[in-house]
Amino acid sequence: MSDSHSTPLSASEISLFDKWWHAANYLSVAQIYLLDNPLLREPLKLEHTKPRLLGHWGTTPGLNFIYLHLNRIIREQNPNVLFIAGPGHGAPGVVASTYLEGTYSEYFPEVSQDFQGLKKLVKQFSFPGGIPSHAAATTPGSIHEGGELGYSLSHAFGAVFDNPDLITACVVGDGEAETGPLATSWHGNKFLDPKTDGAVLPILHLNGYKIANPTILARISPEELTALLKGYGYDPILVEGHEPDLMHQKMAVAMDTAFARIKDIQHKARSENTSERPIWPMIILRSPKGWTGPKTVDGLRTEGYWRSHQVPFSDLTKPGHLELLSEWLLSYKPEELFDENGTLKKEIAALAPKGDKRMSANPHSNGGALKRDLILPDISEYAFDVKNPGEEHGESTRILGTFLRDVMKANLAGRNFRVLAPDENNSNRLNAVLDATNRAWDAITYDYDDHLAPDGHVMEILSEHTCQGWLEGYLLTGRHGFFSCYEAFIHIVDSMVNQHAKWLKTSKEVPWRRPIASLNYLLTSHVWRQDHNGFSHQDPGFIDHVVNKKADIARVYLPPDANTLLCVADHCLRSWDRINVIVAGKQPEPQWLDMDTAIAHCEQGIGIWEWASNDKDGEPDVVMACAGDVPTIETLAAVKLLRQHVPELKIRVINVVDLLTLESKQQHPHGLEDAVFDSLFTLDKPVIFAFHGYPQLIHKLIYKRKNCSNFHVHGFREEGTTTTPFDMAVRNNLDRFHQVLNVIKHVPSLAVRAAYATQAINDKLIEHKRYVAQYGQDLPEILNWTWS
Amino acid sequence: MSDSHSTPLSASEISLFDKWWHAANYLSVAQIYLLDNPLLREPLKLEHTKPRLLGHWGTTPGLNFIYLHLNRIIREQNPNVLFIAGPGHGAPGVVASTYLEGTYSEYFPEVSQDFQGLKKLVKQFSFPGGIPSHAAATTPGSIHEGGELGYSLSHAFGAVFDNPDLITACVVGDGEAETGPLATSWHGNKFLDPKTDGAVLPILHLNGYKIANPTILARISPEELTALLKGYGYDPILVEGHEPDLMHQKMAVAMDTAFARIKDIQHKARSENTSERPIWPMIILRSPKGWTGPKTVDGLRTEGYWRSHQVPFSDLTKPGHLELLSEWLLSYKPEELFDENGTLKKEIAALAPKGDKRMSANPHSNGGALKRDLILPDISEYAFDVKNPGEEHGESTRILGTFLRDVMKANLAGRNFRVLAPDENNSNRLNAVLDATNRAWDAITYDYDDHLAPDGHVMEILSEHTCQGWLEGYLLTGRHGFFSCYEAFIHIVDSMVNQHAKWLKTSKEVPWRRPIASLNYLLTSHVWRQDHNGFSHQDPGFIDHVVNKKADIARVYLPPDANTLLCVADHCLRSWDRINVIVAGKQPEPQWLDMDTAIAHCEQGIGIWEWASNDKDGEPDVVMACAGDVPTIETLAAVKLLRQHVPELKIRVINVVDLLTLESKQQHPHGLEDAVFDSLFTLDKPVIFAFHGYPQLIHKLIYKRKNCSNFHVHGFREEGTTTTPFDMAVRNNLDRFHQVLNVIKHVPSLAVRAAYATQAINDKLIEHKRYVAQYGQDLPEILNWTWS
Repeated sequence: MSDSHSTPLSASEISLFDKWWHAANYLSVAQIYLLDNPLLREPLKLEHTKPRLLGHWGTTPGLNFIYLHLNRIIREQNPNVLFIAGPGHGAPGVVASTYLEGTYSEYFPEVSQDFQGLKKLVKQFSFPGGIPSHAAATTPGSIHEGGELGYSLSHAFGAVFDNPDLITACVVGDGEAETGPLATSWHGNKFLDPKTDGAVLPILHLNGYKIANPTILARISPEELTALLKGYGYDPILVEGHEPDLMHQKMAVAMDTAFARIKDIQHKARSENTSERPIWPMIILRSPKGWTGPKTVDGLRTEGYWRSHQVPFSDLTKPGHLELLSEWLLSYKPEELFDENGTLKKEIAALAPKGDKRMSANPHSNGGALKRDLILPDISEYAFDVKNPGEEHGESTRILGTFLRDVMKANLAGRNFRVLAPDENNSNRLNAVLDATNRAWDAITYDYDDHLAPDGHVMEILSEHTCQGWLEGYLLTGRHGFFSCYEAFIHIVDSMVNQHAKWLKTSKEVPWRRPIASLNYLLTSHVWRQDHNGFSHQDPGFIDHVVNKKADIARVYLPPDANTLLCVADHCLRSWDRINVIVAGKQPEPQWLDMDTAIAHCEQGIGIWEWASNDKDGEPDVVMACAGDVPTIETLAAVKLLRQHVPELKIRVINVVDLLTLESKQQHPHGLEDAVFDSLFTLDKPVIFAFHGYPQLIHKLIYKRKNCSNFHVHGFREEGTTTTPFDMAVRNNLDRFHQVLNVIKHVPSLAVRAAYATQAINDKLIEHKRYVAQYGQDLPEILNWTWS
Repeated sequence: MSDSHSTPLSASEISLFDKWWHAANYLSVAQIYLLDNPLLREPLKLEHTKPRLLGHWGTTPGLNFIYLHLNRIIREQNPNVLFIAGPGHGAPGVVASTYLEGTYSEYFPEVSQDFQGLKKLVKQFSFPGGIPSHAAATTPGSIHEGGELGYSLSHAFGAVFDNPDLITACVVGDGEAETGPLATSWHGNKFLDPKTDGAVLPILHLNGYKIANPTILARISPEELTALLKGYGYDPILVEGHEPDLMHQKMAVAMDTAFARIKDIQHKARSENTSERPIWPMIILRSPKGWTGPKTVDGLRTEGYWRSHQVPFSDLTKPGHLELLSEWLLSYKPEELFDENGTLKKEIAALAPKGDKRMSANPHSNGGALKRDLILPDISEYAFDVKNPGEEHGESTRILGTFLRDVMKANLAGRNFRVLAPDENNSNRLNAVLDATNRAWDAITYDYDDHLAPDGHVMEILSEHTCQGWLEGYLLTGRHGFFSCYEAFIHIVDSMVNQHAKWLKTSKEVPWRRPIASLNYLLTSHVWRQDHNGFSHQDPGFIDHVVNKKADIARVYLPPDANTLLCVADHCLRSWDRINVIVAGKQPEPQWLDMDTAIAHCEQGIGIWEWASNDKDGEPDVVMACAGDVPTIETLAAVKLLRQHVPELKIRVINVVDLLTLESKQQHPHGLEDAVFDSLFTLDKPVIFAFHGYPQLIHKLIYKRKNCSNFHVHGFREEGTTTTPFDMAVRNNLDRFHQVLNVIKHVPSLAVRAAYATQAINDKLIEHKRYVAQYGQDLPEILNWTWS
């Protein structure tokens, strides 16, 4: 750790820097407290203040300090810098800085660079119809929703992958640093190629406190802190103190050092073809919480303490508080910062970089505007040759892997596509992708290693959080990706998905934000085929989680075979601003549709499988519906049994690929019109529905449909264990036999046969149980079952 | 880092240790591969092997090695040690060790200490009706579901809090170490009191590979690794190599050193009253993946490589593979390990500790058996004095805080209750608890710090994962807890909740597991009152997540005021084997029920609020139902408007506290009988339902009810922003006015009034919007609204 005492700044520079900092701090406090009278040109009155005081002051002066010193480097050296504020609730500071740079007014012209604009700026903060208290989609220059903590560093790495000229300066709050996702995301440096990727400059902002507690990293010894960060692979530069003049000098030295090291590392890697992982610089800023704010309030310690975390004092009707606020604001001397018109004085404004070099105007922060469509090969070339439905078996995800391999090849020169998985790429049978690229890896390698290289485009770390964060950062800066994951463990990122969905919804309401590529999930190794992992790996509930998101964002696809999987994946890779969830198994399974039929089926999203149905001459007696690969097999097996044993029974088979076609048109854009739904599912016939996930989800989707009370859904009933695939179906009543029993129960004309059939089926189920318990595999008639 | 070369073991000890290790490794391989012929007394044939080869060999020999060396220390020094296997898929090893200790046969008598028992042992592994491939509730000595990685260390810390004599030896896999939750859980040492808590001995098992990739921590320099672990606050002891004799010596030294240091730290803390945080020891075991397994398979590197991760070779019909398996198994010389009867030879068996000192029989691992009920004060003493419904305002969670304070006081001597929150205890207004205890904190403190002490019983770290993991560990070892969290961010632990729910379900099926205290959540700072945090903090979907769990585990409570919150909390703290979710706001809100009424209401879980209804003489025209504190206010406000303007309209008001009463009795034990449900909600009248969460959840719960098609649910429609509380309701149509509009729409007799009323209401909504936009707060008539 270096703590240099050199003094690169002149006294006049320091004075000017201080003015910018004062302006940013002033506007931060003003945003938090003021409803009007933004420059305090009138004596402060209660009616100038907000009725509800909200915001986070504590982290803000530090953020403003960092921002201005990054601006200095940008002006002097012209690097391309993106700014991420991990302490997201520091929006007063981030917004103030972007306003001082002029960008805010360019994006939001009504918030102009004058007194009227200042009035709007202060009023809108944390105010109805205004902006939130943390960095968000409405913040110019931000790719980071700062409401939920923990993802700043993974976003930062995601942004610089394949952006060799970009440096993301990422402020990590010491509160945020306690989260699990942040604690592991430091390791992003082992996946970063100094040749072909950009750089991340982490700035750990130690201001010591969270809402009401000290932070861990501020309360361990300096030696431990240094060891920790060196252990993460960084060389920390410490900037510590509270006296502004000294701190300006220290921060200038730190920035000079850090940017010089980055330049040096990149130069060396790019010119000398070195292969050793570099030790990247980082900065630790240890500064008081609520720096420059009131030292005490009502006699209680405030600056440098948790009482500064949010609003240092909030009840302005208390004696002395209004005066305290006024003094605090005036301590920044706004009259020296803004001119008559309320415009930032020229000499201070000149500290901002120009145009796109302003961090708030960095083009990468509006990645949709940079997005280039993927080059996609024709899916027909990867088609599984289906002559007759169900005749042959194929591994859907392995076939998808060949398509993804060629997507990777076609876009490798464009460097805008990555495949991610938490150490499951091969397990999920997408191995073919490794024929086109390597796994990203810049840690130690040995000669017997397999497909590891710093510039690989397959990203694998055993952290769903990090995969998700990297991918979000990559997408938000205008690129594309594909994330495969064990179905059960994608729940690990539930809350990250929430935040991304919120970002997408909000960004659609921000006129200058351009659509970004969709977040594409392949959930495989799914609930029905966790043969040896058992119960802990069985959970299909991520679909439930995603359908609660806004209808124009959430999409759920359940392709029943390889060709439909190819169609769906191709569609998802072309889409934007969506969260696409594809669920498909990796095991060998019957293949149903040839490519033309698959394309037609996926375009509708739902349809009658005529070749499996026998209701051509009129209304069916029963509708057998299915969604998901394993449910489709069991439904068709049930249909085959029924057609064999009760040939006069008219059965309509419906397969659902696009789950949200079931929801009503008013609720989801993919929802079928009621008339279409009714014509498919009838108005009054029983519908036996075999579903991949929790059965109640189907009831939730169809509750507005006329025939909803006749739906009988088979799905996962949380009966999991280590067992055979078919036994899993049996334990959850998803299997063919339970489906047949349900048909018998609900089709009145079958009542006479019921007693016999029920007995026969129950005998078969007992035979199944015995066989599985003895041999550990399914009955030969189940293993060898075919449709044809 | 120390790497001693002393040799504490004699040659005969080494030879004996090696035999135990061989026996454990032998049984591990046998479990993975064999269906029968467990001791290879016949030449190995294909039919002796499992049809589906499943399991994780890679980590297993290392686990077995660690286990036997822990046993040595236990025998020599008699410490009380609990074992947690982070590489959970190492169940073949954990199960083998517990079998060798005899415990397995005590818990599962059919798996006896003889040839017949061995047959069962090998067959059951990863076999239908058998046990999973990772440590689970079925594993003696385990408190850790090993299916989803990342929680071993937080479980380990949770187990030793308030157990001063317990040492948890926690093996952390180097794959698991990449997860976020694990990466931050090392910091548990800052929350551990060496006086009143036990110790955690982390053993980082670096075998270098995950499924198909190297691990990060195995591919950074030794200097970086040491720095990282020292940075986390540990003093690592390295055990590295592959030659068994040397490794036995090294591990014995490491264990001696680690246990001596623990003893020393504890002695010092407990006798000398030192206050400095100790530097705890830990062990790094760097050993080959698949140690002692086949060096190569089909010419490809296997031992010490990722190919050993699961089954090193699986197709036993391939030429030479059956022979390879046979050679591998015989290399452990089973004939020297087991006697004629198939019983482990006496001199090897003697290496196991005795009775409860065996880690597999540690009483803390079956915490339910140790559980003592909490001493709970009478909730009536904390009652909010409600004279007339809605007359006065109270802060429900602040009132709950006074109850929790006294729960804490009453159980402080028993040391079996902790309150947890991710830095939100005060924000959630549970401050009163700090009158009874401090926040646990063993990092640096300053004199101005607030309620920090090593033995505090409020646990705060900005990591929901760590809070959840600590609490799980604490509950699983027989204690009680209460976890408060911002509603939106509890999604961070969705997947951990899944695993805990699975553990609870499975443990109920394990006869010797005793019920543990419930996992109690208070979700506050909820969706409707995120006034300044805005959209990112607004998500009520955790309820949706929990209701997918097994019905006998999941409970969801939505108390509308302070007294019902007290009832519900009291009930939850008395319950066992549940996941209880309580959602209640922290803001001042009208209080509805006096304590007697609240108790009666909560006992039913749902009921008609007669005092708000006017349908006493017969069937209502409309049912106005509500669940949640804010929905209840809006429903009552709508009822008041309707009763004012349409006095002849007969309204029945129903409040739901226990959400799952809505589900049918067949689906949930709390579900109302159909007759009761029908008598409450009628068979055909419109039900206007104001719900705290996503509206579709109600439809999902009631789809089997007769009147389901007449339910019109108002709830969160994902329309969030920074705004006033009432405006949030308006944006999502939950407010009184939209409820009235919906009554008008669905009660035919109101049609004539509809045009006028609709206009008046729309005018009011416009007035509301304008007022909020201008003043940033709700209309005075909304702010000052009261029921009475």
